Amino acid sequence: MSLNGTYDDNNIFAKILRGEAAAVKVFENEDVLAFMDLFPQARGHLLVVPKKVRARNFLDLPAAHVEPLMAHVHKLAIAVEKALKPDGLTVVQFNGAPAGQTVFHLHFHIIPRYEGVALAGHGHANRADIPELQKIAAEIAAAL
Amino acid sequence: MSLNGTYDDNNIFAKILRGEAAAVKVFENEDVLAFMDLFPQARGHLLVVPKKVRARNFLDLPAAHVEPLMAHVHKLAIAVEKALKPDGLTVVQFNGAPAGQTVFHLHFHIIPRYEGVALAGHGHANRADIPELQKIAAEIAAAL
Repeated sequence: MSLNGTYDDNNIFAKILRGEAAAVKVFENEDVLAFMDLFPQARGHLLVVPKKVRARNFLDLPAAHVEPLMAHVHKLAIAVEKALKPDGLTVVQFNGAPAGQTVFHLHFHIIPRYEGVALAGHGHANRADIPELQKIAAEIAAAL
Repeated sequence: MSLNGTYDDNNIFAKILRGEAAAVKVFENEDVLAFMDLFPQARGHLLVVPKKVRARNFLDLPAAHVEPLMAHVHKLAIAVEKALKPDGLTVVQFNGAPAGQTVFHLHFHIIPRYEGVALAGHGHANRADIPELQKIAAEIAAAL
């Protein structure tokens, strides 16, 4: 996989956006969808994806779409902090497999950090318990 | 260190913004400054900071300042890719020491990734050679 390539409509986030795959949603409007990572690197690991563009990564994103996406990443990061009170918080976005990207629809990670707790590996964590994710999602949504 | 706290005007990036400390600059306008990380985790590791606000982290940033900052992170990430042709690229921003933040003025990292090359540790890499950083900075600036 390189940084260049063709958008694959069968990626899992495209399926979620089309309603063909399930997700534990936190927020949705016409521009973005925010949902819990099914394989969280830490409690409260949230993903934010653009809905209107077929962008594999951030470099693919047309400039006009940066603001609506990042305004929501910002709001959601603040809500995660309010809801879960982590000790730290990482905002990260991977472009290309050599950077660690595993799903090729642009997504920003919002990952709470807790003192003394190492991150589970990206793409190697255990699948989360859905009712637990739903509870966390409701807490974050309530803090928006 | 927690996510909350007071902005310290003596942090190294504030000194760079005031011209009291040196930096290898790539781009500057009234909103943002982009400069090379002196302790790069990979070749071409770039930092982008807002100039108008005393924000310790992304959560501190007033909403109106998100767009000018992120529009430039986006443009600069594309320029890094054009100039250096890495195999991947990571955009990352740490909030709070437990997340790995070491300088408490908001900054986004743009980190090129090269196939088979592990990242040097954040805050633990070796200090870069300044002429080499200047050469890379000129290449990125030319790709803007």
